[in-house]
Parts: sequence; structure tokens; C-alpha cells
Amino acid sequence: MRRVKLVVAYDGSNYCGWQIQPSGITIEEMLNNALTGLLGEEIKVIGASRTDSGVHSLGNVAVFDTMTRIPPGKICYALNQRLPEDIVVQDSCEVPLDFHPRRCYSEKAYEYRILNRKLPLPTLRRYTYFYYRDLNVKKMQQGASYLVGRHDFKSFCSVKTAVEDTVREVLSCTVEKSKEEVISIRVTGTGFLYNMVRIIAGTLISVGAGEIQPEAVKEILEKRERSAAGPTAPAQGLTMLGITYVKTEK
Amino acid sequence: MRRVKLVVAYDGSNYCGWQIQPSGITIEEMLNNALTGLLGEEIKVIGASRTDSGVHSLGNVAVFDTMTRIPPGKICYALNQRLPEDIVVQDSCEVPLDFHPRRCYSEKAYEYRILNRKLPLPTLRRYTYFYYRDLNVKKMQQGASYLVGRHDFKSFCSVKTAVEDTVREVLSCTVEKSKEEVISIRVTGTGFLYNMVRIIAGTLISVGAGEIQPEAVKEILEKRERSAAGPTAPAQGLTMLGITYVKTEK
Repeated sequence: MRRVKLVVAYDGSNYCGWQIQPSGITIEEMLNNALTGLLGEEIKVIGASRTDSGVHSLGNVAVFDTMTRIPPGKICYALNQRLPEDIVVQDSCEVPLDFHPRRCYSEKAYEYRILNRKLPLPTLRRYTYFYYRDLNVKKMQQGASYLVGRHDFKSFCSVKTAVEDTVREVLSCTVEKSKEEVISIRVTGTGFLYNMVRIIAGTLISVGAGEIQPEAVKEILEKRERSAAGPTAPAQGLTMLGITYVKTEK
Repeated sequence: MRRVKLVVAYDGSNYCGWQIQPSGITIEEMLNNALTGLLGEEIKVIGASRTDSGVHSLGNVAVFDTMTRIPPGKICYALNQRLPEDIVVQDSCEVPLDFHPRRCYSEKAYEYRILNRKLPLPTLRRYTYFYYRDLNVKKMQQGASYLVGRHDFKSFCSVKTAVEDTVREVLSCTVEKSKEEVISIRVTGTGFLYNMVRIIAGTLISVGAGEIQPEAVKEILEKRERSAAGPTAPAQGLTMLGITYVKTEK
């Protein structure tokens, strides 16, 4: 028996998120079906980031156990033959049998992209959130700075979750505008709450639009109340960039 | 009667190109239908660049004549309400009645994007051409340099066209690789032949892959024969960036 780790990129536009659910097709289900077909064993992957419906990924992580003789490094190529073009496994490698992608220490990186101009651009519509009003990037950067560090992020967590410990550590939170009028919010951290990055994005958009003062982000954290923060920004602007594990590959 | 100029952005993935044809839906047809519905007159636009099936645009140009009282600058907003999200008119303004988007002097800019890495990325699949083998950007830049200037581009023109004069002027042709492993070929010129940018891209890809020497691009031009150049690169990598007209707006 071996445990194999996959790095999975996907365009989330046509999926009901990562996690298997009765109402629609998910990334997890697509991977389980493709792996089961390829390896001739019933495979159930364990994912690192259970991304929402419509969220994209360049490097989500999943593991599964297998008896196959296919070398772990070759599995990704064979697997991609069985996956549609909107899911591409970027890498496969063996990891220790006790490696669990959500229980190990890891650093996750997300990017939220906002197209900030007067009219939408069709070629960016699936991968950015279009926002018409002028956003002040400097204010967004200032607001973002208060989020860095170990804080209780209860205000930045969907009320649709029952998690008790809402303390998380944000390692960095940067805001940049490209010459193509795309504002990118990049957040890295050791763990995230349900909808946390999208609520951070929604709050920083409110800061950029002048509806929330940059310094108020500090108070929003202190309130520990979802209603204190800004709205949850739409899914299509969010991409999980990747996950770094320390000392896990065999 | 007024002549109105539109700047049109679109995701070409779901269209059979610009020009009206019996076999499928085109950008031109979508614009004609939306304008006819909006203005209550039968409208037929004249386009500047008749892009192929699958080619995208940030700023193609079209004109039409109308008796409407809607201010020309407002037409784009009203029109976008009647267009699907993969076509967005970026601007509308009045131009002289004799302004013809293909007969005036103009400078057109195109970008061909190649995703050059070992595995495809789902979120870029519609807007780049995935190429697996390592491309040498320096060689591509050297090859590109021979194309700049006024040349007979017969070798870079599809044989499916009957055009007689194949002399065109390329104002610039640059090749750059981004940190996201996307190689962008940008070409500007005062006129282009059928498939010219895609054949330039296909030829520079062959140069980057080592199949054609950079200096051979000069010889390819001199041969005046389509078969001397590289293949026609796939449509989805091509985006029409925009068109600059000199002294046309009223």
C-alpha cells in the first residue's frame, strides 16, 4: 500500500466545488472516478482545500491510497488522459502513509482577482470579479495590513459553519494592481475558515470603495461578528494558488 | 443620419468568428441583431478585423449608420444590455459618414499567447495555445526581428484567399515570456493578410523549438510561398488587442 499526493489545477466554473455532494458534479468526484477507472481499485481522495462552487485552483492537494504498481510520478500523466480539460493534475508523488493534507502544518496561498474598470472584459469574466467603481489600492493595502498575524477571524467566517476555534494565522496579505486593471489580493496563511478569503476580499473591496475606513478593519476583527465585515465576494474571482508542506515527501 | 463607431471586446470561444456565415453564430450577427433590436432600424455593421472562429478581441472596431436620437456615447451601455456576457462593447462614438474601418489608415495590434510548460493549466486553456516542448525565447525574438518592415508576406498568407497584393507593413513584432510561463508574441501593423498573425506565431514557435533557424525567417519571406513558413497556430491563442485610427473621431 502506498499513499500518493496529487497537485490538482482546475477551472471551477462548471463544478459544484471540491467536495462530493448530491446536487452536482464536483472535483473530488471527478478525481475519484478517474482514479478508480485508472487503477482498478475503488479510490477516495482526501482533499486539502475544499473549495467552493466556482472557485479555481492552480495547486490544490489531494491524497489517496493504492496498491498499484504504476510509479507514483507517472500517475498524473495517465490520470490526465481520463480527466476533462478543465481539471489537470500537475504532479503526483509518494508521501508517508500517515500524511494527511489537512492535518499537517502547511502554508496555503490564495489569490482574489478584481477587474476594476468601467466595463467588463469578456475574456476575464470567468476568472475575475468585475467591479465598476474606482477602488483605492492604497487604502486596500492599508486595510490588508491589519489582517496579517494571528487573530480571531470570527468576523471573517461564514455563519454557515459550526467551527469553534476561529483563531487563524495570516502570514501575508498583499494588494496590487496590474496594468490590465486587475487588482489582485494575495493571502497566505496556515489555515483558513469557511469563506474567509472571500470575506477578506469583500471587506477590502468595501475599504477600496470608501465604505469602510482602512483602520476599521482592526475593529472588525475585534468585534468577532460576521456582520461587522464586508460582503462575501463572488466565487469566480478566487483561485487557490498552492499549498506548501514542510518535510512530507518521502 | 449618423455613423457610429463601436469598440468591441469578445471571447471568441463560442462563435464562428466575426463575419456572418450560414453555418453558425458570429459576432457580426450578434451585433446586428442587438443593434436592430435597440434602435428599431435594420442595422448592418462593417467590421475592421474579420477575426476567425475562436479568436478573441479586446478592441475590434465596427461602424454602422443610424437615425437614432440616442447620443452616440450612450449606445454602448444600452447595447451591452442586449448582448451576452462574452461580447461587451467598450466604447461608442460618432465618426464622419465616410469613415470606413478597413479603408482608413490604421494600426492594428494582435497578441498570440503560448502556454509553454510541461502540463496545461485549465484556467488558461481558452486564451492560450498549450505547447509542451521548451521554446527558446531569444531565438523567437531574433526570428521576429526579420518580420518588421514592409515585406511581401505571401509566405505568411493562407492559400485559401485570392488577395493579389501581399505586401504589408509590420511595425513591430516582440516576444516576451511572463513569470506565469506564458510567451506573448505581439504584432502591430498597418494591415494583415488572412491568417497572417497565426502563421507568424506558428513559424516563431517552430523557431523557438529549434525546427527553423532564426535567420531562416528572412528566407521564408523571400520564398513567397505558404509552404515555406511554419504551421498556422491554433485560433484560441490569438487576441486582437485594438486598432488605432489617425484623425477619424469627429
